[in-house]
Amino acid sequence: MQSLRERASVMAPEDGVAEEAEIAEVDKKLISNIVIVIAMQTEALPLVHRFQLTEDPDSVFPKGVPWVRYHGIYKDLHINLIWPGKDPVWGVDSVGTVTASLVTFAAIQALKPDLVINAGTSRGFQAKGACIGDVFLASDVAFHERRIPVPVFDEYGIGARQTFSTPNLLQKLNMKTGKLSTGDSLDMSPQDEALIIANDATVKDMEAAAVAYAADLFSVPAIFVKAVTDLVDGDKPTAEEFLQNLVAVTATLDQAVTNIVDFISGKCLSEL
Amino acid sequence: MQSLRERASVMAPEDGVAEEAEIAEVDKKLISNIVIVIAMQTEALPLVHRFQLTEDPDSVFPKGVPWVRYHGIYKDLHINLIWPGKDPVWGVDSVGTVTASLVTFAAIQALKPDLVINAGTSRGFQAKGACIGDVFLASDVAFHERRIPVPVFDEYGIGARQTFSTPNLLQKLNMKTGKLSTGDSLDMSPQDEALIIANDATVKDMEAAAVAYAADLFSVPAIFVKAVTDLVDGDKPTAEEFLQNLVAVTATLDQAVTNIVDFISGKCLSEL
Repeated sequence: MQSLRERASVMAPEDGVAEEAEIAEVDKKLISNIVIVIAMQTEALPLVHRFQLTEDPDSVFPKGVPWVRYHGIYKDLHINLIWPGKDPVWGVDSVGTVTASLVTFAAIQALKPDLVINAGTSRGFQAKGACIGDVFLASDVAFHERRIPVPVFDEYGIGARQTFSTPNLLQKLNMKTGKLSTGDSLDMSPQDEALIIANDATVKDMEAAAVAYAADLFSVPAIFVKAVTDLVDGDKPTAEEFLQNLVAVTATLDQAVTNIVDFISGKCLSEL
Repeated sequence: MQSLRERASVMAPEDGVAEEAEIAEVDKKLISNIVIVIAMQTEALPLVHRFQLTEDPDSVFPKGVPWVRYHGIYKDLHINLIWPGKDPVWGVDSVGTVTASLVTFAAIQALKPDLVINAGTSRGFQAKGACIGDVFLASDVAFHERRIPVPVFDEYGIGARQTFSTPNLLQKLNMKTGKLSTGDSLDMSPQDEALIIANDATVKDMEAAAVAYAADLFSVPAIFVKAVTDLVDGDKPTAEEFLQNLVAVTATLDQAVTNIVDFISGKCLSEL
């Protein structure tokens, strides 16, 4: 994702001065309003309890959508945790890129956050140094299931973006970082694998690049916190390993998100 | 997509009477406001000229998004043609499911249409009777790139939905119909092919199932008009055949959309 600072550097010179002043202003403002997007209820509920959030009875979202907003004040931060809810037809968590982009879009439109945090479980690559239970802060996101072999459309399909840079947060919390690749499948086809390798990814998930795309439409900075439930290049079948580790790894994820929110409290974007 | 009538039939009896009356009311109201979602500028512009639409200078969409709304009155219908615009980073048409779902969601939220029409080019299966230049009205839509091998999540991933039923339109315009499968790739991996076959698809595109998902969130009926630019099981490479036929097939698509809009004019939903 292009940061506000990076955007300023590519602007026309005549616009530059006023915009740089505006950016400096944004950078100095304390972060007060956060949107946390979490795809699965199992991942979301421990954080709802941790931050003592309450469900919004008068949803900020359009009538009829299953999306749930939990909100509250924690350490002077307005926290909005958005869970896309259960699918109205199939009754399972509304995972994947379409719903992730929709809730991110609608939440930013309604709540105008200073920062978006997408948190969730992911699959890791042992060969790139990932272990089960690791929590990564993604340096870059990209798609691996949008193959459009036409010049320039191919790059659009991959949609690689840098995430919002948080060097102090990374150092202070001693977090792992790596590239993240997103696709709508839990499994991995040979075509997916080739693109994931081309994306140089250490972890893969099912939402991040879509959250990044929607946040970038509004130029809202976004960060991506992903805990590893299973290894793509390990020796156990995906679904089995995923379900086996989901609860324990979710506890690790929730602790990491709490540490991040604690770190953010009282800081401005440029201090992250 | 579940129609309003189908929804009524699965409701609790105590809600049924009032809701049925409401549905009868909706069905009898003349269609006055249409949203047409088209992913590519090449597909959109001939219809902008045909319906004499003008670009909305004060976009109904959030500031910063590249989405374009063309609008105007044609045969007593308010027509809103939404084109997602050029990607801000790569400068190509914003194709695919993420953007398609976002613009459909935002357009329905802002414009409250009676009907959504998703029109575009597609790839056909010769073995299922598709020929280059054919225009299909999709009977069903589903995804073929969302493989989640966990019970029930697998069905959510496929996300099969019936589209809004338009038997009179089909008969009067003598249109072909068939199932449509959606994925974010222009090419087709063996895994995609297996799911496309399982979806019993005659045509494949890159947006429809996502448009259907977003429209269904608001219970707005949606139809899908897809013209075949190239054959998946033909003997030419996809990208080459696609680019070669794009302009000619787009003219056929535009004529079909015009015929559909002409047919819709002066009718209510239950007459389609």
